Order: sequence, then C-alpha cells, then structure tokens
Amino acid sequence: MKTEVDPIRALFEPASIAVIGASQDRKKIGFTIVKNLVSGGYRGTIYPVNPSGGEIFDLKAYRSLGEIDGPIDAASIAIPAKLVVEAVRQCAAKGVRNVQIITSGFSEVGNHSDENTIAAIARETGMRVLGPNIFGLYSSSASMNATFSASAISPGSVAILTQSGALGIAMIGRTAVENIGLSAIVSTGNKCDIDETDLLGYLVDHEATKAILMYIEGVKNGDRLIPMLKRVTLRKPVVVIKSGRSKRGAMAAASHTGSLAGADNIFDAVMRQCGVLRAESIDEAFNWCKFLSASPRPKEMRAVIVTNGGGIGVMATDACEKYGIELYDDQNVLKEVFSPATPPFGSTKNPVDITGGAMAEDYDLALSAPATSEHMDATIALYCETATFDSENLSPMIRETYNRHMSAGKPVTYAVVGGESVEKTLMELRRENLPVYGDVYQAVSCLGSAFKYYSFRDEFSDSTDIAEIDAARINGIIDSVQSQGRSFLLADEGREVMEAAGISVPRSRVARSLKDAIRASGELTNPLVMKVVSRDIIHKSDAGGIALNLENADEVMDAYGAILHNCRSYDPNAVIDGVELAEMAPQGIELVIGAVRDVSYGPIVMCGLGGVYVEVMKDVSFRSFPMGRQDAMSMLQEIRSYPLLLGVRGEKRKDIDGVIDMIIKLGSILIRCDRISDIEINPVRVYDSEKGLRALDVRILLKTIQGGSSHE
Amino acid sequence: MKTEVDPIRALFEPASIAVIGASQDRKKIGFTIVKNLVSGGYRGTIYPVNPSGGEIFDLKAYRSLGEIDGPIDAASIAIPAKLVVEAVRQCAAKGVRNVQIITSGFSEVGNHSDENTIAAIARETGMRVLGPNIFGLYSSSASMNATFSASAISPGSVAILTQSGALGIAMIGRTAVENIGLSAIVSTGNKCDIDETDLLGYLVDHEATKAILMYIEGVKNGDRLIPMLKRVTLRKPVVVIKSGRSKRGAMAAASHTGSLAGADNIFDAVMRQCGVLRAESIDEAFNWCKFLSASPRPKEMRAVIVTNGGGIGVMATDACEKYGIELYDDQNVLKEVFSPATPPFGSTKNPVDITGGAMAEDYDLALSAPATSEHMDATIALYCETATFDSENLSPMIRETYNRHMSAGKPVTYAVVGGESVEKTLMELRRENLPVYGDVYQAVSCLGSAFKYYSFRDEFSDSTDIAEIDAARINGIIDSVQSQGRSFLLADEGREVMEAAGISVPRSRVARSLKDAIRASGELTNPLVMKVVSRDIIHKSDAGGIALNLENADEVMDAYGAILHNCRSYDPNAVIDGVELAEMAPQGIELVIGAVRDVSYGPIVMCGLGGVYVEVMKDVSFRSFPMGRQDAMSMLQEIRSYPLLLGVRGEKRKDIDGVIDMIIKLGSILIRCDRISDIEINPVRVYDSEKGLRALDVRILLKTIQGGSSHE
Repeated sequence: MKTEVDPIRALFEPASIAVIGASQDRKKIGFTIVKNLVSGGYRGTIYPVNPSGGEIFDLKAYRSLGEIDGPIDAASIAIPAKLVVEAVRQCAAKGVRNVQIITSGFSEVGNHSDENTIAAIARETGMRVLGPNIFGLYSSSASMNATFSASAISPGSVAILTQSGALGIAMIGRTAVENIGLSAIVSTGNKCDIDETDLLGYLVDHEATKAILMYIEGVKNGDRLIPMLKRVTLRKPVVVIKSGRSKRGAMAAASHTGSLAGADNIFDAVMRQCGVLRAESIDEAFNWCKFLSASPRPKEMRAVIVTNGGGIGVMATDACEKYGIELYDDQNVLKEVFSPATPPFGSTKNPVDITGGAMAEDYDLALSAPATSEHMDATIALYCETATFDSENLSPMIRETYNRHMSAGKPVTYAVVGGESVEKTLMELRRENLPVYGDVYQAVSCLGSAFKYYSFRDEFSDSTDIAEIDAARINGIIDSVQSQGRSFLLADEGREVMEAAGISVPRSRVARSLKDAIRASGELTNPLVMKVVSRDIIHKSDAGGIALNLENADEVMDAYGAILHNCRSYDPNAVIDGVELAEMAPQGIELVIGAVRDVSYGPIVMCGLGGVYVEVMKDVSFRSFPMGRQDAMSMLQEIRSYPLLLGVRGEKRKDIDGVIDMIIKLGSILIRCDRISDIEINPVRVYDSEKGLRALDVRILLKTIQGGSSHE
Repeated sequence: MKTEVDPIRALFEPASIAVIGASQDRKKIGFTIVKNLVSGGYRGTIYPVNPSGGEIFDLKAYRSLGEIDGPIDAASIAIPAKLVVEAVRQCAAKGVRNVQIITSGFSEVGNHSDENTIAAIARETGMRVLGPNIFGLYSSSASMNATFSASAISPGSVAILTQSGALGIAMIGRTAVENIGLSAIVSTGNKCDIDETDLLGYLVDHEATKAILMYIEGVKNGDRLIPMLKRVTLRKPVVVIKSGRSKRGAMAAASHTGSLAGADNIFDAVMRQCGVLRAESIDEAFNWCKFLSASPRPKEMRAVIVTNGGGIGVMATDACEKYGIELYDDQNVLKEVFSPATPPFGSTKNPVDITGGAMAEDYDLALSAPATSEHMDATIALYCETATFDSENLSPMIRETYNRHMSAGKPVTYAVVGGESVEKTLMELRRENLPVYGDVYQAVSCLGSAFKYYSFRDEFSDSTDIAEIDAARINGIIDSVQSQGRSFLLADEGREVMEAAGISVPRSRVARSLKDAIRASGELTNPLVMKVVSRDIIHKSDAGGIALNLENADEVMDAYGAILHNCRSYDPNAVIDGVELAEMAPQGIELVIGAVRDVSYGPIVMCGLGGVYVEVMKDVSFRSFPMGRQDAMSMLQEIRSYPLLLGVRGEKRKDIDGVIDMIIKLGSILIRCDRISDIEINPVRVYDSEKGLRALDVRILLKTIQGGSSHE
C-alpha cells in the first residue's frame, strides 16, 4: 500500500490527499481547505471525506477512508478535537503516509493526553504527523494549497516554516502585498511529531526553494536541529525570527555559565554558529529573504555607495558600519572608475557623490561603473528627490542598472527618499521584486544580510576537535561523589578532574592536621594560599576560611589556627575535612571558561571576561559543542575583552592557544562524562604565550538523577 | 525703518519679503520661490526684484531694492554667487531685517572669503543671515512657503530644521506622502550666521509647533546649543538625526578621555543630557515626531499590550524591553480589568491575549478597559489578520478606540499585520495621522520615544554644582609649567593640582638623591612605589623606571640604584629630575575619570571603568559641564560596570559620593582654569564608602596657545 517516497517528501508532494472533515458549509475549515486545493490547482487526487457523503466542488465525497480505493499519501484532518485520535488511527490503518492535524485543542490548552496518543501512533506506525493546531501546508512543487488561508498563495522561491498559526496566516497576507512567491509554507504548530528538522530535510534539496524563513517560539530538539541547519545554510540562506528575546530561560542559576546562558543567548549563539541570520521583525525577515533569494553571490565583500546627496550618503556609511559592510576604499581606483560620472564639485570617494544635479543618465553612467569594475562587488544606490530629476525616469533607470548588475553577477540595493511620485515608483518596483527601499537602513541591511551569509559560507568549517581526557579517572571521581550522595564536587575533587583533563592548576596539598600543613608548605613554593575544605562551608570568605600571601612556615601555622577558629565560630556543626594549601598564581588576565549541558541543545561551552567582571560585564560568548578550534577562536574574537588576550599597552600576546585548548577540554569532558551537567573555571589566569594559563577555581556540578549513576 | 520685531521672529513671520532674483523663467529658482509664496497664500507683501522689472505673477517687479517704498522684513536671495555679497550689502543698507541666501557656491566648495564677508556684514549691521546654500524656509504662522520645493507644504505641528538641503527637499516630499503637517521647515545650510540655536529660540515659544525634528551634520556652537535645547525640551519634544555615527572625531588622542570622546560619542551624550531623542533613520524620526506631536502625556509609565496572537504579543514584549517600556504586571488588576474581554483560553496576563477568534467588538471591549483603568497609562494594540475578523471593521474599531484613548488622555499605538485589506486600512489610517504601523517594533518604538521624553522631563533638574577649588594655586603651577615651555604637567605638578582641588592622592615625596630617598621612605608608610621623574621619559615602565612593593630602606636603596641605571641605559640623554616615592594604594575598584575641553561643546567630563580596561571595554559615559550631582550620578548609572560600585558578591557599597565629587572637581578645574585642556585620572581606586577613593595616576595637558598664557 505504501509508496516508496519518504513520508516527509510525500507531505510536500503527495500524489493524493484526503480531507477528513471536508464540508459544503462555507464556514467550516474543511470547506476552505478543499476550496484552496481545487482553486490552487493541486496536481494530485483529492478525496473529500465526510460522513454525509455527497459532492464537494464536483468531487465525490467519501463517507470514510475505507471507501477510498488505492493508496493515500496525505490526509488533512479538520474535525472536532475529540474525534481526532480515532481519525489518526484510521489513517494509520489505511497506510496514509502522513497526516496534517489542523484541529486545535491539544497540548496548547493542556490536553497532553490525546496529543501523546497521537505521537505514539506516529512512532509505532511510521506515519508522520504535522501539528496538531496548524493552518495547514502549501507546497509549490505539488501546486498544493492545503491551508485555510483566505489569501491565494503565489508560487516562488521562499519557504516559510512557522510555529505560530496566527502569524503564519498574517504572513501569507503579507507575501501577497509584497508579491513574494512561496515555494512552501508550513505551519508546525505543537510539533507532536514532525519538527523543523524534518521539514528542513526536504527543503535542503528542494531546487525551487532559494531562501528559508523560520518563525520559532521554542526549540525542542536542538541537538538534531543544529547539524541540519549547518547542512542547509551551506546550500541556501536561512532567516529566523524568534520572539522571547527578553525572557531569561528557566535554567537554575547554579553557575555563571548556567545563568548567563539564558535560553535566548544560547539560541542566538547557536544560530550564528549554524550560519542562520536572525531578523528582529517580520518586515526585516521578509526584506532579507526577498533579497537573498534573488541576488547573486558577491565575489568578495567590497561595496560602493553612489548617492546624489551627501547627507544620505553619510547615513548609508553609518548603516554599513552597523551591518558589517566593508566599503571599498582605494581612492585611486575610485577616482578612475567614477570620474567620468562625477561632476567636479562632486566626490569620487566612497560614498561617491554625483550631486543633486544628477539626472537619470548620470546615474546610469555612475551605476554602470561598479557593475563592470573588477574592484567592487556590490553597490548601494541612493536617490534623494531633487527639483531637476524627472521622476518619470527613476523607474527605468533603476530597472536598467539593476539588470546590468544582475548580468554582471553583482548584488545592488536602492534607497529612494521623496514625495508622492517617488513613493509610487517605490511601490511599483517593489511589486516587481526589485530591491528598492524607502529607508537607507533597510536597503543596507539587506546587503548586510547577504555579506554575512556568504562570509559564513566562505569561512565555514565543519571540523570538530575532541580533546584526549582521562574519562575513566573522571568517572571514578564521580562514582565516589555520588556514593556520598553529593551532586557537586569539592575543591580537591575538581582539581583532580582538571588533572585528568590535562588542565594546569596551581600545585597544592590538602592537609588534615597542623603537622600536615607545615610539611605541605615545605613541598610548595611560597607565597601560598590556604583554604578550608568543608562540604558544609560554601562561602569560604564569609566564614574567614581563606588566608592569602603566606610566605613561610610561621605564617602557615598562624593561618591554620585562625582558619579553624573562624570556621568553628562561623558554623560549630560544620565538618571540617582539613585545609588546602596552594601556590598563589601570579596576576594575569582573568577569564571564565565553562561548559553546561543544555536540555535542548546539549553541551554548550562558554568563555569570557572572568573574575568579578563576569556578572557585571556579561562579556561572554557561547557555542554548541562539539566544534572545532576555529569556532573556539571565533568565540574569543566575539568577546569585547579579546584585545586583552592580544596584549594591550605594549603587553605581550597571551596564551590564546591554551585558552582554546581549555574550552575544547571542558566541552570534551561533557561529551565523555555524561553525568556532569556544569563545569566552570573562574578565574582562569592567562599569561604570556610561553607561560601558559592556570585554572584557579573550579566548580563542577552533576546531573541530579534519582537512583544514582546513569553511566554504564 | 526697522520694525520692533526680533529679527529671528521676522524671519518666520515677516510682514514683507523681497525676492532678489525673482524671475519669469520657470527654470529659475527665483521663479519657483515667488510661485510658492503666491500659491502658498503668504499673508504679507511680496516684492519681486529683477533688473528687468515687469510683472511676475501679477506682482510688480522692482528693478532694485531702492525702488521699494517702506520697510522690508525679509529678503530671499537667489542670484549667481558672485553677485550675492553686493546684494547682501544693499539689503543691509535698506534696513532689511534678515536675508535667506539660497545661492550655493560658498564655503561648501571652498569659497570662504565671500562667506566670511557676508558673516561680517551680519555682525556689523545686526541684519541676520540664513544660509547660504539653502532651499529656503517655510513658516505656517505667515503661511509663507519661501522654498523652491516642488511639493506643496501643509500647515501642521512639526517643525523641521535641516542642514542638508537635498535631504530637506526629500523630507518635504515625504511629509506629503505621510500627511505630516509642518509648522516650519528651515534649511540651515552653511550656517554663516543663523544657526539651530537662533531658530530654536523662536520655535520654543511657537504655539503651533508641537515637535521639532533636526537633521544635523555638524555642530558649530555646542555651548550655545546646549542651554537652548534644555529650554526647548522642557516645553516640547526634539528629535534629532545626526549622520556620521561611524566617524571618529579628528581630536588628537592625547588621552583616553580625548580619544574615547569621539565627536559622535559627545554628541550622543549631550543630546541625552538635553532630553533630545536621537533617531537612526528618517522614517524613525518622522514616526516619532508624528506620534509625539499628537499623543497626550502619559501620567505614569505603565503600558499594556492587547493582542489577538501570542507570537506577535511576545514580539511586542521584546520590543518593549528594547525601547525601555515598562509593562504593567499586577496580575490581579489585569485579570479584573481584562476578564470581561478575554475568552477562557485567552490570557489576561500582559500581553493580554484576546485570541484569534476576537472580533471588532471584542477589541472594542478589551481596548476600552485600559483607556478607562486608573492603573494603566498607555496601550499597545496588536492585530494579526485572521479568517474570522471582517477586515471592514478594522478601521472603525481603531478610530473608535483611538478616540477613546485620546479622550482619556492616554497614548495608544497600533500594529497590524496582514494582507491587502489590512495594508489598505493601514494606509488609510496613517493618512488620518492615526498611530498605526505595519511593524510591531515601529509601533512600540513610538511609544518608547514618548516614555523616554516624558521621563526626562519628570526627572530633569537644571541645578549645577561647581566645586570649591584653589584655582589661584593651580594657575600658579600652570604659570611655572608654561614658563618652562611645556604643555603637559609632570607627575608631582599633577599631584599638586590634585591637592589644590582637594582630591586625595597617595602620600609621596620627590627625592633628588639616594639620601633624600631614604629619608623620604622614613616619612611614608610601607609598602612604597618608586617612579622616575623625568620629562624625557614618558613610558616609565618601558624604561624600567618603576619599582613596586618596597618594604624597607634596603629595598628603597636597591630600587633607587636600579631605576637610575635602567633609565640611563634606556635613554642616556634623558634629564632625570629624581624619583618619586609614594605609598602604595590598596586594591580597589579602578575607574577612569577625566575632563576635556571640546572645541564645540566646551568642557566635557567622562567617567568609566579604568585601568587596563579603559581602551578595551570602552565602558565610559560623558556629560557636558557644568552639570549637577544628579547628572554625575546618572553618568555612573549609565556605565555597565556600575554594579561594581554598588558592591557585587557581598562586597560593600563603594564611595559613590566621592566619585561624584571627583567628577565635579575635574569639571570645575576646567571651568576655573581655562588653560587646561585635558585632565585624566586613571586609575582612580575606589574603596568602601567609609574609606574613600584615591587618584593614583594623573595626567594634565594644557592648551597649546602660541605666545603664552591666555588667562588674566
């Protein structure tokens, strides 16, 4: 009964679709879906299903699935929620490849039980389920509009995946206004089975799809999504809108890494790592998708601004800085290329100012120059309405110079500012899908999205680096910690984990008695720091449990007595295991390096400015792990304090390689030791290249799993 | 001959205007200006002036100014550049109150001499000059369109001052498209005489002007502009667009304060200090002006979002965080207020979600609630197109609920997302000047601009604090420095200035010999730091001219020898004045505090995170000085590292009052000692409140004026 086609492909290109809940009642969703399928020119067979039978849009309506002969690729379900589970069961029995559940009233209103039943049917039978709680799906390859949208959908090259049905319907309307053609739009709804990763798996190879827009509210299986996104972005651009930026994740703030890694920070970092462009608003996302799906890939990233007004030119320069666009600046070449098109009181510097007197033919000349010059890769053309320029010539000039850029394989973007006639031209050209905007920042941001996207592709490397660590030894330490019923490691245990991972820590000894302490001090190099070791004393400073700068045995003796006295007064019931004596590390740049296991994305590594500045400056960056050394390097380059590592004020370059090693090592510990949930080193003291770095304070937390160890 | 009216008022409301260069030739600017004056319904007398005489638009043309009887308030000059100076002279002779020089070809193309002559005539005669290089001026109070704009200008409540003529003409066009009425638009051009400050002096009391938009490329007399802007913003909102954000000022990087105070940073800080709202793009500026000129002042700042879609609601929440809008969050009140309008599966939390099934009457109910509730001060209403909502009802619903908010004196803003019919509604309502937007961020940013503006007004204080400092002693030190031909102070001189200003520095002695050094060390408390004193050695560390942590006389002897040896090897020709011994200050929070004399804005103070982080983190804030302690406090609150001063990780609050004192003292030194151009203390060590703060390293530069002292 089953076709050979992969069910997700059958979702987009079904040979047949049953509409369960098809209706002659115009107010019913089942009516609209059949109507849209018919009027959209669906290429396959439509089977309306309605207990009353009869005809719907000249199509025979079947009383049940059982009445239908032959295989059914897809079914759209638009019947009351309480009937849905049974319908899904029947679909599975009939061998339907996939179902789209339009009906709402499931997990989004607390009805988890029915949704779980549906998900279980999908798992058991292999039939895939989209939804529930969706507006349906449109796919250009099958000319299939199986949505209940009131607007028609034009075929084109942008695919949209949206978690919000309401916003999806509104976006369909907007694509009509903006004349954006779609290759697909899919409502993902509650994602009880099919999620973005499944859908991207189809779109990555879908020739008609040139750009993908995703609206996401929450990510469920980030660990599946990440590798898929990396695959997709190497083929075509992906733009994402995710709302909820302002919300901090619910993750307990057990460590800085945890608290700083609010859900949105991680999402943002992961998207960047995958080469996904994140838009703030729907308008911005549409502008980018439209531009990216139509514009050629620039050879390099050198842009030129051509303007008839100085003010608007400077504005565009500001916008270029904001959106990371590099302006071409070889003055000699600019002069040579633009002199013929620039009057003497204009400027051939970039922005090239062809002045307020410029007519259409002057623009034509000036914009042909970068289209043909080997030195420039993209053009930003600006027009400020003037009294002399005949507005009738504006559209033809833009069309002409646009085509010239397209033929030369170079992106170009236009901003025009002025009155009614300029506005009319703007609307007209936008309908023709030319990249013309009424605002300089919009025009520049589109080119910026292309530069960002293609830069990512140029620099992308999928190599991953996992460090050699002594996982057996670490797991042994964890066994012992868990056998004591703890979910956190003590200082000396953390230190041992560091050693097992080959991370350098200051030399130290734990002393259980005064005699021990004096002997230990003899084995270490002064000055020393002494800290109480006690699982009952978390805030050692507050308890008076720390002594710094101990220079000799006398001072060690005094400090030992003082610490014991202080801690016993602080908490008479505290069990004191001893004191730890460690060599004091010299001053250096202080970083924080951490790794945390995220519920959705899996291991996440973090690095940033450490010490007391962690919480205050929040100058940190994140990546999903595993990743390569190159990614670790880009993490460092992302933090504002990176110049400290390069050496400021005549300081030498610090041990950046060592920092990268340490990030990779912490990530690798999370990969190899699955009971660890958080590791954080703060501070890591980083010295000049030849002097390395040192982990001063290590904090390690375990997953709190009931019933003990989860490792083999 | 002269009228009693102030010349700037006569510029906006002249009883008569002569158009020098009036012409019958439609291609001439002089034609367009007369045409615009006539067709705009100018209330005064128009005197066309043309050597050929005749008639222009039924008006008698005069061969020269001399032919005109009676007084002339204003003259518009649109004749070739080489004839302009003579025309200006004739205007002055005739007693014209002000002239507008349309003609270009002056300082903007390097012709400074004619422009200077014109400025001199203005200074000598009191006749005021607007321009040259402008498109003219429109003023609603005189129904006077003395511009050469092709578009008609509608009267209204927004005044525009623009330095760019090209952008100004384009903005006039845009106001027509957006149906924004203007109370005035003035092209300021080269500003050879009249500048923004003069024009604001009229607009501040101009009843019809409800909001002012300024496009600025560069500020000439910031010290005049600042007090004027403060006066204006207490009466009406001012929105500024300044391009050139990305450009760093040309100021020599003689200090961090200087180099960090790039022209745009100062501009930005000064505008904030004056309560001016800075927009990024023309669209944003127009949106804000339109909103601010029409919307009532909210009582307090508690906003509520009402939406029919969850996704768009979360987006608006993000936008509220971005634009600093506080969302009302008393859940009980929200429930009470919104329950009647929210279905059970909706949400009365903020955003209030009245769900996708909401019809016009549901919106009506839901939006009436915040209009009448005493708990909420502003509303953000969102509509996502749905299949059920009849789009014909959208406009009436918005008009109705808008009016209800206006009657209640509460601002409201709308965002609507959807297809053709929603787009049509949007356009229609925007033409009616209702605050309806196609993008959530735009809608929220307008309300944000109002919140920001009125918060400024609520918190504004114009008190200034000048510290008592011993200016005579400081000027004495400067005399001595200048007598030695230096423009920078040596360490001990800087220290003495600090003492004269009552700023605490570590105790120290300058020693000229080893014997001196040993004696000095006996008078100070160990540990000590020793630094070479030499005008020839700027980078003391590089020269080996610093020794730290000297604990006793032996170490002082060793260090003295080492420093002298190092410095002599480093630079055998350096004149070494001695060494300075100072008590080492304990560790503390390190700030940088500075003051710099800006060529345009006068004294500017800076504070921020100090030490090695200054250049890297650039976590600094600026203010124009004089200012009050309240401003200094807000400077501190602006820097990211402010929590360090409040005390993090259980640390005590630091001496914030002392920091404020120090900022005020540095500003006061610049006010009282006008030969000083730069003072910078880096680091300032700040301790717990009761322990004060200490200036560790002081750098003072003098203005480099030829021919010695400029003070009395």
